[in-house]
Amino acid sequence: VTPDWIALDWGTTRLRAWAMSAGGEVLDQAASDAGMGTLGRDGYEPALLALIGGWLGDAPVDVVACGMAGAREGWAEAGYDAVPCRPAAGSPVRPETRDPRLRVHILPGLSQADPPDVMRGEEVQIAGYLAQNPRFDGVICLPGTHTKWAHVSAGEVVSFATAMTGDLFAALAGHTVLRHSLAGEGWSDAAFDEALGDGLARPERLAMRLFSIRAAGLLGAPDPGAARATASGLLIGAELAATKPYWLGQALAVVGADTLARLYARALNAQGATVHVARADELTRAGLFAAWQTLKGTP
Amino acid sequence: VTPDWIALDWGTTRLRAWAMSAGGEVLDQAASDAGMGTLGRDGYEPALLALIGGWLGDAPVDVVACGMAGAREGWAEAGYDAVPCRPAAGSPVRPETRDPRLRVHILPGLSQADPPDVMRGEEVQIAGYLAQNPRFDGVICLPGTHTKWAHVSAGEVVSFATAMTGDLFAALAGHTVLRHSLAGEGWSDAAFDEALGDGLARPERLAMRLFSIRAAGLLGAPDPGAARATASGLLIGAELAATKPYWLGQALAVVGADTLARLYARALNAQGATVHVARADELTRAGLFAAWQTLKGTP
Repeated sequence: VTPDWIALDWGTTRLRAWAMSAGGEVLDQAASDAGMGTLGRDGYEPALLALIGGWLGDAPVDVVACGMAGAREGWAEAGYDAVPCRPAAGSPVRPETRDPRLRVHILPGLSQADPPDVMRGEEVQIAGYLAQNPRFDGVICLPGTHTKWAHVSAGEVVSFATAMTGDLFAALAGHTVLRHSLAGEGWSDAAFDEALGDGLARPERLAMRLFSIRAAGLLGAPDPGAARATASGLLIGAELAATKPYWLGQALAVVGADTLARLYARALNAQGATVHVARADELTRAGLFAAWQTLKGTP
Repeated sequence: VTPDWIALDWGTTRLRAWAMSAGGEVLDQAASDAGMGTLGRDGYEPALLALIGGWLGDAPVDVVACGMAGAREGWAEAGYDAVPCRPAAGSPVRPETRDPRLRVHILPGLSQADPPDVMRGEEVQIAGYLAQNPRFDGVICLPGTHTKWAHVSAGEVVSFATAMTGDLFAALAGHTVLRHSLAGEGWSDAAFDEALGDGLARPERLAMRLFSIRAAGLLGAPDPGAARATASGLLIGAELAATKPYWLGQALAVVGADTLARLYARALNAQGATVHVARADELTRAGLFAAWQTLKGTP
């Protein structure tokens, strides 16, 4: 294939690329482990060429990227656009390349002054959601290591909030007294639902309920499945208590089709919220396509 | 010295020993890094002899131990006494030793069925506090990696609760996006007090306020001292919200003279609670002394 342009999602651990047509269709795709976390500044261009060199012809091609490649420690710092603003619509940064065929554009993230918050990558999924649903007015939840909640209105992100719930869960499971209790892949929906309700109603008890998981394991038959579901429910329950102004009575979209996104949808449904679940990959490409069209001057 | 008996606090990371007189005075002391976490079952006796061999004469001597040496993966499992009960007053376990001069007694911990909870080591400090204050009726708070709150009445532990606040802080500082923000040793009392109040009033916002620390660092001048104090205040604030039934209007003792115990005392004072601060080491020895007297039949 010879794409009209190339879309990149360059995260901390993964680099994903799509060869795209001028109409926004996917012609080919590729991925590697050359995440921002593994690269020095001189490593980006070689990592990119190793992945998508086969897509390049003789002519220069636009490469539109989002994610951590635009962080301060990334390929080139792309900065942040301050909300309220249209997402993924600010001026990209253009890192220099040795290969003259690469015209790389890295999109800026979003920032919020008060309370202080940032996002980098998710704003492209929000832009993709708005490209598909231009009249959407409500809240978009993007579950992940750092789950984002974005108030969207009139095509702009009005405000947003981040909960580092997934990061906390991973640290608990890997580096605390709960590391044995939370090992394995087992799961119990009943334990999740119970803990979710308790986390919502009594979020202050988090550090105590978590220790109880360990104590229950010492005193009785340990059930790693119930333990994982309980810890997850407690954490997401507290997050839903904090984000109630974001989801209560709002039009609500959850981005993602993975286990975590399904958990958030289940939790929100249990609170009576109606959730529209959208596919993250598709939104990333739709958002990058919208940004490429803006770059080309073809809205 | 030739002690009348030997007191041991055998924790996960440290082994501490005191050569004691029959009247409870300290004749000598020693410590090593031979914590339970570093030892297989056959490693305990050699580690003990390496530390206190010089105190042994020809006659057998009682060695009274508390802590993780009595855990399932320790020297010999000492079990748990179920509350309500007198602390550190149950039957010790007697591990076999090759050296006939060692008569080792490892004290049991405490357990609670509902909500499930355990302690191992802190119950000896509680026993020590009760030995010094036999009429105490109130709550003893023992700050640590896993902070314990114990309701004490008529010489018994009636109920208790554990908050894994310190474990959470260490995991946040070591293994999450906050690891750079929380590096260093700086501190701000003002940031701690502000975050404490917010953590108490809005504990559900923990995972969002924590991410804000990182975002503030990215958007402005990072202040690791304020960041550490803020994270600590948020976590302890949530713990105080959960433990309000333990400290509100109760006679209250905080055990410890280290930085963490001072933080808890500061936080409780800010809530209008009057706190009696007690020295942990002294209480450990007093509790082991009481246990040794019981073993000897001399109350």
